[in-house]
Amino acid sequence: MTSPVTQPEPITNDPLNAFCKDSGAYLPGAASGPLSGLSFAAKDIFDVAGYVTGGGNPDWKATHRPADRNAWVVEALTRSGAAMVGKTLTDELTRGIFGENVHYGTPTNPRAPERVPGGSSSGSASAVAGGLVDFALGSDTGGSVRVPASFCGLYGLRPTHGRIPLDGILLQAPSFDTIGWFARDLQTFARVASVLLESLAQSPRTHSRPQRLIIAEDAFELASSEVAQGLQPLIEVLSSMFGATVTQRLAPGSLADWSACQQALQGFEAWRSVRDWIEEVNPRFSFEVAERYTLARAVTGQEVAEAAPLRRSVGDRMDQVLADGAVVCLPTVVSPAPLLGQRVSDRHTLRLRNSQLTSIAGLSGLPQLSLPLTEVDGKPVGFSLLGPRGSDEALIALAQEFEAALRR
Amino acid sequence: MTSPVTQPEPITNDPLNAFCKDSGAYLPGAASGPLSGLSFAAKDIFDVAGYVTGGGNPDWKATHRPADRNAWVVEALTRSGAAMVGKTLTDELTRGIFGENVHYGTPTNPRAPERVPGGSSSGSASAVAGGLVDFALGSDTGGSVRVPASFCGLYGLRPTHGRIPLDGILLQAPSFDTIGWFARDLQTFARVASVLLESLAQSPRTHSRPQRLIIAEDAFELASSEVAQGLQPLIEVLSSMFGATVTQRLAPGSLADWSACQQALQGFEAWRSVRDWIEEVNPRFSFEVAERYTLARAVTGQEVAEAAPLRRSVGDRMDQVLADGAVVCLPTVVSPAPLLGQRVSDRHTLRLRNSQLTSIAGLSGLPQLSLPLTEVDGKPVGFSLLGPRGSDEALIALAQEFEAALRR
Repeated sequence: MTSPVTQPEPITNDPLNAFCKDSGAYLPGAASGPLSGLSFAAKDIFDVAGYVTGGGNPDWKATHRPADRNAWVVEALTRSGAAMVGKTLTDELTRGIFGENVHYGTPTNPRAPERVPGGSSSGSASAVAGGLVDFALGSDTGGSVRVPASFCGLYGLRPTHGRIPLDGILLQAPSFDTIGWFARDLQTFARVASVLLESLAQSPRTHSRPQRLIIAEDAFELASSEVAQGLQPLIEVLSSMFGATVTQRLAPGSLADWSACQQALQGFEAWRSVRDWIEEVNPRFSFEVAERYTLARAVTGQEVAEAAPLRRSVGDRMDQVLADGAVVCLPTVVSPAPLLGQRVSDRHTLRLRNSQLTSIAGLSGLPQLSLPLTEVDGKPVGFSLLGPRGSDEALIALAQEFEAALRR
Repeated sequence: MTSPVTQPEPITNDPLNAFCKDSGAYLPGAASGPLSGLSFAAKDIFDVAGYVTGGGNPDWKATHRPADRNAWVVEALTRSGAAMVGKTLTDELTRGIFGENVHYGTPTNPRAPERVPGGSSSGSASAVAGGLVDFALGSDTGGSVRVPASFCGLYGLRPTHGRIPLDGILLQAPSFDTIGWFARDLQTFARVASVLLESLAQSPRTHSRPQRLIIAEDAFELASSEVAQGLQPLIEVLSSMFGATVTQRLAPGSLADWSACQQALQGFEAWRSVRDWIEEVNPRFSFEVAERYTLARAVTGQEVAEAAPLRRSVGDRMDQVLADGAVVCLPTVVSPAPLLGQRVSDRHTLRLRNSQLTSIAGLSGLPQLSLPLTEVDGKPVGFSLLGPRGSDEALIALAQEFEAALRR
């Protein structure tokens, strides 16, 4: 006879302001399974039956009904033994990468308390970094897992687009939306991967170990010199693991074009996702989020028609770069977490600069794993591995090999 | 020995949701004066010493200090014997003409409870129409006195620009901003005028009775057919008071051009009034108001350079139309108050349509008096008199003569 699993307690109030105060959502884990004994939190865009998915905006919450069922991914995790202990704060409707929410406050970045945690999966990153849960679910449309992973010093994956089912989440821009997760250690991260990446048996995948390393020259040029220098020792160790290492530009033109392409297409979809609700409710938003929607609304069909071929060419280009078993390394973000309370226009500028890095995986749909292996001025900075479509597990395996090399 | 004046009670809570709940601002009137015994309310953009001027936005209120002194106009009224019994709700930072405030709720339109009260001087119009005060202060930048006067069935004046000092009010777009007021009866309205219009002794004025009536053909074409028909009997009586009546187009081109000119110039100024605050605070706004600011921010210096000469030509044109003692009559708005809770884009369209009427006085700086003399389908609709620069008193005197004629 085995004793029953001790279930973690629900969390609705916490010193980090990572959790939604008014959610109450809690789901025990199955008695046994590969994630047995682990606790997790879910960004408040994941449906939990009986609770309203709030999406980081009080008017969204007030105008929607409780979910009928759990999000597919929440169900998969609890069925595998993990307990969901609460919902976490998000940027309004996932529209942000810094994690400052004017309605609910900003989750603390435990690794740099005077700085933003990153968003939009802000509360999930904060809760994991602060040790409140073992792992947490986020989503990544334009960087919303990778950026907070970098800022809070966590492992975070933007998986291959389409790899993990989006059923039961508040979508932003479906052709870009992905579900990711955070953990403090790679072992826990890989345990969660074993559950979530098995979810769609028919999705294409490659488990083979990359044989060539590509250092993304134009990506490193975008990073601050401190970040580029801070990542240099990691590049050297990683290079030593490969027979062939090349420094190569990813964009034939400029990564700024890629970012502009993502802004247009993501914005076009994002506006269509919520326009009827906005029209009817005239919701309260921060100025910044409302501004993004008005900019998104202004994207014309003509602009979309021009951006769509570029998006395809980005996918083709990245497939070509990654052919024959290659992996790309790049900085996750251009800088460590900025200070809290920046001016709106400064944040806008910094968001667009980071978007030049995040749109590489965003437009191509490729998996990107951010690793918390260094600091700049005492603040975490993520180092990213980006691989071919379906190489999600291979990236995690490569990270394990990489960490072993770093320990030597 | 005279007994002391009985001062009206302060109002902070009321069944119409016209007053700011959390203001507490109250000023007794002087013991004697031309307005002795009258109570009034002030839109929450007028400073009252010791109280924060809230401007209809909770983040504005939270980030500003209490006023040092009373607004000039508030001081003038209380010194004349009127008591200020409270502050009234406004559209956020006066940016609206319908009066729906997502933060504080919508003041009731006592004359059409299922419809908007009009704004941005919504609470002032509601309080007067509901009999809670004798008169109330509003402001009119792009229609914010004239529109609620029309929707709530009140007398309301947009005075000659520059006629009443703006000291101590939350400015929106100073080259358009004016202070106006509402009353239920013309006698009370004129008593207030006698105080407020005397304020700047040096401002140009004309007391002469207009000798020619101009029916603004293009303005009536913009009104719904019901409004145009509903105002027809008034036009007939008014015409009978003049030796000469002509039907004439005001705009050489289209009033839509005038509206676009006002939108650009007013928006340009409005954005500059608040941009630093928005940049620092990232305030919560309704989507609609944030949208207006993002549109306003997009106005270029080039557009302003093109609009400025048109504005001057509108002033010249209206001076020419009104030369030799003329007065213009026009509908105040295109329709009675719309139903509450319209879609954002429908409200936007209706606002721009009304702006074609309100920009006539807005661009030219001329006084316009809206009279509550008729209803359409049981809902109030204002009839406006628009006169030469400084003819504010003459318009009120003409209205008195007009009402006498209507009684005959």
